[in-house]
Amino acid sequence: MTSADPGHSIGSTGSTDSTESTESDAGLLAPGWAHSPAASTTSDGAYLQALLDTEAALTRVQARLGLAPDGAADAVTEAARADRFDVRSLAERARGGGNPVIPLVADLTEAVGAEYGPYVHRGATSQDILDTATMLVATRTLGLVLADLHHVQLALARLAGEHRDTVMPGRTLTQHAVPTTFGLKAAGWRSLVLDARDRIVEVRDGLPAQLGGAAGTLAAFTAYGARNTVALTAAFARELGLDAPLLPWHTLRTPIADLAGCLAFTAGALGKIATDVLTLARTEIAELAEGSGGGSSAMPHKANPVRSTLIVAAARRAPQLAATLYGSMAAEDERPAGAWHAEWEPLRDLLRLVGGAAHDAVELVDGLRVNAETMREHLDLTHGLVVSERLSVELAPVLGRARAKALLTELARRTYSEGRSLAELLAEVPEVKDVAVDELTDPARYTGSAGTLTDRALERR
Amino acid sequence: MTSADPGHSIGSTGSTDSTESTESDAGLLAPGWAHSPAASTTSDGAYLQALLDTEAALTRVQARLGLAPDGAADAVTEAARADRFDVRSLAERARGGGNPVIPLVADLTEAVGAEYGPYVHRGATSQDILDTATMLVATRTLGLVLADLHHVQLALARLAGEHRDTVMPGRTLTQHAVPTTFGLKAAGWRSLVLDARDRIVEVRDGLPAQLGGAAGTLAAFTAYGARNTVALTAAFARELGLDAPLLPWHTLRTPIADLAGCLAFTAGALGKIATDVLTLARTEIAELAEGSGGGSSAMPHKANPVRSTLIVAAARRAPQLAATLYGSMAAEDERPAGAWHAEWEPLRDLLRLVGGAAHDAVELVDGLRVNAETMREHLDLTHGLVVSERLSVELAPVLGRARAKALLTELARRTYSEGRSLAELLAEVPEVKDVAVDELTDPARYTGSAGTLTDRALERR
Amino acid sequence: MTSADPGHSIGSTGSTDSTESTESDAGLLAPGWAHSPAASTTSDGAYLQALLDTEAALTRVQARLGLAPDGAADAVTEAARADRFDVRSLAERARGGGNPVIPLVADLTEAVGAEYGPYVHRGATSQDILDTATMLVATRTLGLVLADLHHVQLALARLAGEHRDTVMPGRTLTQHAVPTTFGLKAAGWRSLVLDARDRIVEVRDGLPAQLGGAAGTLAAFTAYGARNTVALTAAFARELGLDAPLLPWHTLRTPIADLAGCLAFTAGALGKIATDVLTLARTEIAELAEGSGGGSSAMPHKANPVRSTLIVAAARRAPQLAATLYGSMAAEDERPAGAWHAEWEPLRDLLRLVGGAAHDAVELVDGLRVNAETMREHLDLTHGLVVSERLSVELAPVLGRARAKALLTELARRTYSEGRSLAELLAEVPEVKDVAVDELTDPARYTGSAGTLTDRALERR
Amino acid sequence: MTSADPGHSIGSTGSTDSTESTESDAGLLAPGWAHSPAASTTSDGAYLQALLDTEAALTRVQARLGLAPDGAADAVTEAARADRFDVRSLAERARGGGNPVIPLVADLTEAVGAEYGPYVHRGATSQDILDTATMLVATRTLGLVLADLHHVQLALARLAGEHRDTVMPGRTLTQHAVPTTFGLKAAGWRSLVLDARDRIVEVRDGLPAQLGGAAGTLAAFTAYGARNTVALTAAFARELGLDAPLLPWHTLRTPIADLAGCLAFTAGALGKIATDVLTLARTEIAELAEGSGGGSSAMPHKANPVRSTLIVAAARRAPQLAATLYGSMAAEDERPAGAWHAEWEPLRDLLRLVGGAAHDAVELVDGLRVNAETMREHLDLTHGLVVSERLSVELAPVLGRARAKALLTELARRTYSEGRSLAELLAEVPEVKDVAVDELTDPARYTGSAGTLTDRALERR
Repeated sequence: MTSADPGHSIGSTGSTDSTESTESDAGLLAPGWAHSPAASTTSDGAYLQALLDTEAALTRVQARLGLAPDGAADAVTEAARADRFDVRSLAERARGGGNPVIPLVADLTEAVGAEYGPYVHRGATSQDILDTATMLVATRTLGLVLADLHHVQLALARLAGEHRDTVMPGRTLTQHAVPTTFGLKAAGWRSLVLDARDRIVEVRDGLPAQLGGAAGTLAAFTAYGARNTVALTAAFARELGLDAPLLPWHTLRTPIADLAGCLAFTAGALGKIATDVLTLARTEIAELAEGSGGGSSAMPHKANPVRSTLIVAAARRAPQLAATLYGSMAAEDERPAGAWHAEWEPLRDLLRLVGGAAHDAVELVDGLRVNAETMREHLDLTHGLVVSERLSVELAPVLGRARAKALLTELARRTYSEGRSLAELLAEVPEVKDVAVDELTDPARYTGSAGTLTDRALERR
Repeated sequence: MTSADPGHSIGSTGSTDSTESTESDAGLLAPGWAHSPAASTTSDGAYLQALLDTEAALTRVQARLGLAPDGAADAVTEAARADRFDVRSLAERARGGGNPVIPLVADLTEAVGAEYGPYVHRGATSQDILDTATMLVATRTLGLVLADLHHVQLALARLAGEHRDTVMPGRTLTQHAVPTTFGLKAAGWRSLVLDARDRIVEVRDGLPAQLGGAAGTLAAFTAYGARNTVALTAAFARELGLDAPLLPWHTLRTPIADLAGCLAFTAGALGKIATDVLTLARTEIAELAEGSGGGSSAMPHKANPVRSTLIVAAARRAPQLAATLYGSMAAEDERPAGAWHAEWEPLRDLLRLVGGAAHDAVELVDGLRVNAETMREHLDLTHGLVVSERLSVELAPVLGRARAKALLTELARRTYSEGRSLAELLAEVPEVKDVAVDELTDPARYTGSAGTLTDRALERR
Repeated sequence: MTSADPGHSIGSTGSTDSTESTESDAGLLAPGWAHSPAASTTSDGAYLQALLDTEAALTRVQARLGLAPDGAADAVTEAARADRFDVRSLAERARGGGNPVIPLVADLTEAVGAEYGPYVHRGATSQDILDTATMLVATRTLGLVLADLHHVQLALARLAGEHRDTVMPGRTLTQHAVPTTFGLKAAGWRSLVLDARDRIVEVRDGLPAQLGGAAGTLAAFTAYGARNTVALTAAFARELGLDAPLLPWHTLRTPIADLAGCLAFTAGALGKIATDVLTLARTEIAELAEGSGGGSSAMPHKANPVRSTLIVAAARRAPQLAATLYGSMAAEDERPAGAWHAEWEPLRDLLRLVGGAAHDAVELVDGLRVNAETMREHLDLTHGLVVSERLSVELAPVLGRARAKALLTELARRTYSEGRSLAELLAEVPEVKDVAVDELTDPARYTGSAGTLTDRALERR
Repeated sequence: MTSADPGHSIGSTGSTDSTESTESDAGLLAPGWAHSPAASTTSDGAYLQALLDTEAALTRVQARLGLAPDGAADAVTEAARADRFDVRSLAERARGGGNPVIPLVADLTEAVGAEYGPYVHRGATSQDILDTATMLVATRTLGLVLADLHHVQLALARLAGEHRDTVMPGRTLTQHAVPTTFGLKAAGWRSLVLDARDRIVEVRDGLPAQLGGAAGTLAAFTAYGARNTVALTAAFARELGLDAPLLPWHTLRTPIADLAGCLAFTAGALGKIATDVLTLARTEIAELAEGSGGGSSAMPHKANPVRSTLIVAAARRAPQLAATLYGSMAAEDERPAGAWHAEWEPLRDLLRLVGGAAHDAVELVDGLRVNAETMREHLDLTHGLVVSERLSVELAPVLGRARAKALLTELARRTYSEGRSLAELLAEVPEVKDVAVDELTDPARYTGSAGTLTDRALERR
């Protein structure tokens, strides 16, 4: 408990600061998300506030519908401030019933006082509160992610435009294949980011409040006098800026699965970008470099691509976290013994990891240095064979298919044994003297539709 | 090789039938999907045909755009029949280059003959063909899944309607909580099925063809004379009934990730239903029973819920298969060394598992026997305590909060020690003589909004 | 920052207590492990201390080998107290280089002072420190797990012995099959716990220190004068109570994978026990009950099996966390960009989850209530058909195989239609009048080798 | 059905060859394992034979113990030949009861004939047969894997010895760090392979037979007259070359989890090697090349590292397959409804993937081409900064710590701006004229203990 005045602390177990220092996690093992904006929206404190927001909204809505006195709404709203509660004590007492809402309701009821205490949590079940709070946390965190993705896509659009015609080796199975452009690559990255954005927006816009009571029938609300539980649920959702669900979803976990899907997708999309940067930033390749690190230190050769590294680490973890959430869909009864509890930490981890990765991605794309010259130079690493596909197409009508193939095989062999370029060798072949060898062997002129594709992709908004 | 006339076999390695018997898989370990319709649309033969369909469509489209003679289109289309190819030999020779398209192009080119052979696969890369064929296989299989889900949701709608007022125990963390209805449960199941349907439809309707050439620039098509590769791609997609992609997606794996998501979701949705059936079909519970098995055998007590078992098995596997696919999004370069190859079998497995599970779900819901009487009887297992929530709400205004609580605690203790029902004990308490004890303690009258929720949920189409 | 005297704080960024309250995690979403002993050994504070222990051990060992002055060893050892460092600030600054050791070395060097500061971290790389510290954390946490598993196995041995002959229904695919005993079930649970213990012991006893320097060649140590780096490594490992590795294992992740394996195994073993308890504690079955909850509350019917629920939640998550760790084995180069970073949190999560689950398991087995009478009664739920296997074996020699089968089929049908027991119906059949019907139909006398198996299993130590 | 003489076919459903072509899988999507030795030991045919071997062993053992006539043992053994059964029909009929043993027992009983048919499967349950057969399949496949790993480790020992002093850049986070040797790298790879071998051997040597009857009590065997079921189980295990289990393990899944662990480990170990090869075989790096592909084709620049690619693909899939198996440990009752069924295909997939990867690894290491000259040249890519760590160590005593650092920072900056090497620039600094600049800046002389570590690692057998 860390409030300045211990007197404000509710339910304190008397933990001391030094215990907290030992027991609480501040992100020491999490350079990928600690201290990112998403860390703040997914912390224990943020969850605690969301739980309190949910309880307060429930009482307010009941007051509005005549199911509780206005004073209760005011009292609960006033009491529902996270800094007045002892999160460590709540965590400890959560163990008894297996969820944190049980001790929270006790503390909140006490804080609200004898008169209005009975209106705290009235009619609800723990899962109503925890599920709804989770939707609030998710909504808030996804908002941050979307803002970062927007920034990323704008930066990528700029990069793609600037490098529309920056030619570089296209690589398949680690080997140079044919030329491509960095513009097309950046446009592709952006396309994935927009796909992620679209999936997140669709999920976020439909995240529902949860209200069902003990077993999803809303029976206690009825017993307390609610005549129209549909209206109650709708008002509750509206109060929190969430969607009204068609049914209580205690064991119909569509929102959780949808979050798993869009978050795993986003981690993968950012992971693709970071993976490419890691490859192209290798000492031997050096076509890209992360913006930070570098020149001034004693080891300029060791500018580690840290942002990409941490994004890739997130992308390696996200799919398995999502798998746990998808696995929890098979939840028995009206509240499962385990499947629900197995969702809490993995979903938070996913939100954090993706939030951190999106934040790192902003820095990554903003600072990315593109070495166009190096890209161009690398096209010559294969002595011109990077355009052999083109030559086999173009020489066949001139020489006949069989002769063209034989000639190219022979010349390819000689490029390596003699260390000369394909263009050079080809220029010495009398049969092709009428062929525009310079053009045919220029990698920069064999980029196919890269420019057009880049232009089209950038039209997407 | 299984063609009747060995002379038709292309690329045969001379494997004998008995070898095939040893080496091929016929689904011996897969009662969940073997011999289901989805087994047929995802078999090696189905993939082979899809690969051939893709090659044939590519040549036809090129002919239509003047990039190949009409005769080539006819010849490739004619040759592209799976039963003329030796799938075992293709599988064996796929090892060399690491994918099956390389030997298939060789065999198809040979089958087409010298004149039109050069127009086979012209301009394309192996990944264009395999990715596009995978989309065809996915489209076909998802069609089957959707048909089965439609059947399932209709059956569930019927069940929910019939049992709108069939009261049963609501269970949380394995224990009776408050009453609910089987109608609400079935309506919830249906809601998940409709969610799955919506996600599948959205994904299926956007599955794109793949066309990019060696490194996604479509350069070879240009070299072969294509003036408008956008139009070429669009025509190719249209020819196969697929969407035209905005960009080649060799390493922008949105379609694969989307399939992973909607398939894992569907497995989870069906898994929820099956998990509930398994619980409620237990010998001690017996509120539900699968339709098959049962009465006439020598062991009527041992009617195993086999359909549910196999659906649950699928739901246990699907999330991890999806995780592998999400993990493959972080694919380096223009074609990754491993991430792409790691997609093929898991995606097929997912399609099969979900296809089989949906097929089993049809049989499950069609045959499901609902023992409404047993459900009703079980509500008395807690001696009436299943309505204790209601009593604490209703007695508080009558007795005062504290006295109501004390009384209920006392009576609850006595229900167990004396083996009498709460209603019976309550009737003996003078203070509540004006309370309608019979109504308050009737579980059937404490189902809250279950009926209304069921009605609303059934309005969804 | 939580130290009482801010002057002792090193590297503080001036975060206030209230920020910490918002940003740090105290286990609010983790009733399964928060405030368990394993929470303490895996907290940020515990990792910080382990990192400092590692640095201090390194300097001490170097002093002992003459590579640093004794004063340096003392100074570093003195400074290496976690409560003097600001874990939040370290976490924040870890972002720059992507790991927490970089800022920690800076702070520790400052704390040690100008004279001995240069001997901090001398020759080592961040990964040496973080990997070694992780092994310390793992060793300490596994010690707790082993102690809990020992307690659990003793309790299960006692239960198995006490209930050696407590007959209950054996259940397969949710249905009663043939009788078994609770003793055999408990002995089986114990067998899994012992398997987990053996696997953990084997892994724990081989956990190695990590020492390799920048790229695993120990070159800097040599440059600083070490003549025998093998001896240096061995002394370093001994100082920390760890094994000396054969090779630096920066990208040879055997210890991490082994931890993943034994922890996933243990989660599964405990998960089996908890899954069985959840099933057998269902309201309708009630053969088992968790010790806590229950009698005195206002809702005695709702004694949730919370310990089992939380253990099952851990078992649902552990396999996917282990998968991420196994996936990190494919780590490129001498230090991978992402695969290493993806290990840190999942390994900690696994340690915590398993530590919490083992702790919950102690409470679970200690308090487990076995309702032997209910078990016996349930054997009659199938009207005696639970022994139909035996009857078909025993009646065949008497009646002939075909007649025996026909008779049993007929009687089975009648048990259900007439609601009479198999024994009763069988007693009316003249052909079997010489058969000891009472014995043959007594479930308690058809437990096969259950007793012997239990005895044998309990001999294992 | 593929037997030459249809008359030998048992239980045929009349499927035609062309159906089989459509429905069976021959490995078209599996270049990583199709047609490998492990494909043969894990095919449907191999499982079918293992199931039959298990049934035959059971009858033989019963005959030996006087529980069946000798003629029965002979008849079952004679009939238990996979080529006499129709695997497709079995797969189809497996759907009814959810496992393939049920129809197999029917067909085998029919094949054995009226006299001895009753002795088929006597006393056993389907799971006894399927679990035991799986252990046979696993044992056989692991034998192949071990042979391949042995080959791999020998080849790596040779490579490590040959390249003990082949210096190359050590790389961390994609950047050159300090020099290392290829010998040390190869020795590290070998070390992982030996770790994999040790884990497989330990698991394989303990794989147990399964015998428990309907619910793990062996009751039916007792009813059939077995006096000592422990001896029966031991004899059964011995007959099949498996271990005798302490308890029936229907829901104590230690053997499955252990297989998951050692197979995921092996996939990761081989994945590490392949990942390194993929990196070092990149066009720009080219320090390694796979043996196949290359020189003679028309595209010599495009020698794809196919073996590494397929090994990496296996390593990407294995962890999630293992996760499913670990997840199945939490199996309820005496046979779970789903958890068991979810094991079959993933375990087979793991065996195949690892079998195929080990086979590919043999080819990979046998053919690996090491370009020592390129490795040496790359050490100069950072203009000598790859030894900056050494210089900062060695110059500090000469120049003082501060001056040494300032100097190196300045020179480092100049190496890039002037394109000159660190050695060259250093030679111009008067203060260091007495320092052996040539030695200090020679990367080949800064490999620390690489040689010693390699030697030590190679002593491991």
